[in-house]
Amino acid sequence: MAESDESIGENKGAGGVQPGPAIILVEPQLADNIGSVARAMLNNGLDDLRLVAPRDGWPNPDAEPMASGATLVLEKAQLFETTREAVADLNFVMAATARERDMSKRAYTPKGSAIALKLRHAPDRKTGVIFGPERSGLVNEDVILADGIIHVPLNPEFSSLNLSQAVLLVAYEWYQLGVEMPTMRTVTQSPAPSIEAREYFLDRLDKELDAAGFLFPPELAPTISKNIRNVFTRAELSDQELRTLHGVVTALLKHQSDDG
Amino acid sequence: MAESDESIGENKGAGGVQPGPAIILVEPQLADNIGSVARAMLNNGLDDLRLVAPRDGWPNPDAEPMASGATLVLEKAQLFETTREAVADLNFVMAATARERDMSKRAYTPKGSAIALKLRHAPDRKTGVIFGPERSGLVNEDVILADGIIHVPLNPEFSSLNLSQAVLLVAYEWYQLGVEMPTMRTVTQSPAPSIEAREYFLDRLDKELDAAGFLFPPELAPTISKNIRNVFTRAELSDQELRTLHGVVTALLKHQSDDG
Repeated sequence: MAESDESIGENKGAGGVQPGPAIILVEPQLADNIGSVARAMLNNGLDDLRLVAPRDGWPNPDAEPMASGATLVLEKAQLFETTREAVADLNFVMAATARERDMSKRAYTPKGSAIALKLRHAPDRKTGVIFGPERSGLVNEDVILADGIIHVPLNPEFSSLNLSQAVLLVAYEWYQLGVEMPTMRTVTQSPAPSIEAREYFLDRLDKELDAAGFLFPPELAPTISKNIRNVFTRAELSDQELRTLHGVVTALLKHQSDDG
Repeated sequence: MAESDESIGENKGAGGVQPGPAIILVEPQLADNIGSVARAMLNNGLDDLRLVAPRDGWPNPDAEPMASGATLVLEKAQLFETTREAVADLNFVMAATARERDMSKRAYTPKGSAIALKLRHAPDRKTGVIFGPERSGLVNEDVILADGIIHVPLNPEFSSLNLSQAVLLVAYEWYQLGVEMPTMRTVTQSPAPSIEAREYFLDRLDKELDAAGFLFPPELAPTISKNIRNVFTRAELSDQELRTLHGVVTALLKHQSDDG
């Protein structure tokens, strides 16, 4: 198994890399799949691979055969313990998922995701796409982190893609869009906060709402918390807006304590 | 290895198949790849898989794990000894190849190929796409058979796709086009000849030209023959035109012998 193959095209080396979204694999199980993902990434000029708690540890030489020469991507791959840490420095992140989720997110096709990512790509902004483990897919907690979800329209009776095939379609649409729109203007609104900064605010809000008795009854707390988080991730906050929201929370708390 | 995975979507069964191009794998080497191809086909509603002289014979139970439930595609797969036999009943066939070829063919991106195939798809017409063996790719003889070639625009420094990834991209673009243009009108010109009938004419022409001393000097004969074949495959002949061309050859031969 895991032989490389060259039926289509030629793999000269690790050149041709262009700035593009990071690919985040959450708890990948098979080294073959990690290798195939590296190959599919480099086929499309991507090289920022991030691994969250891969089952068999990292580095893993078993990933190399299927990478078929995309060794640089494997060597550069970063290891993280949690998805949240893996996306902390990014500014816009999407989650690939096919299952229906009980949450309100913008959903994109792979082509739509390429446009969404391109619009948010700039020298001072970083984007990424999160893919879940083989078999189980992403847990809700990871999907909540994301600014949008990617859904691949496929045969509804047989829609499960192999992990590296899913990465390929997203990376391929990204690359094709670059071919079609090489000079596409990026949106230059005010700076976007890192996902770490956004999560910091959402955690703070969670904590304060919990202390205020808003997350009640306890069995509904996760749902209430999830819904609030989705409102703020969907809003694509700027740095300035995030600071304002911190101020709003502080002001409300202060007002409350004045009353009390 | 060769574990199935369900990270994206759900594979319920073998439903959701729609009429579409046949996928022809020439001398595939790895059972894993044949399985992955079956999965990628059914993901996109295709089920007509044709195998030309697979290295490890057919049927091959080792293909099943990577098919991840696309067993029906494997069970229906047809076995052939030559590429020519595998495409004999089709009316329009494309070849996936990344290497530059010294021949004059129309070239398409995967998206372009989907449009080209769709335009030629009709109840009385059958289409197909030929993919070469891992590592070596298609031989020129197989490419000459094709009405057009498919080239995937990828990182020029790292453009070699895994076999099943190449099939996925072509099948995916086919399926997406169906989503975008479900009622696209098919071209209804006069009936198209089968590739078998076209090859029969080209072989006859070859033979007559050789007998007439046209394929000379011998070392250039293959090139001359190839160039002539490419003219006629590119022309997308109708049944009527093919009959006319047979008549032309017959008339010229008769005239020649009258002279002689």
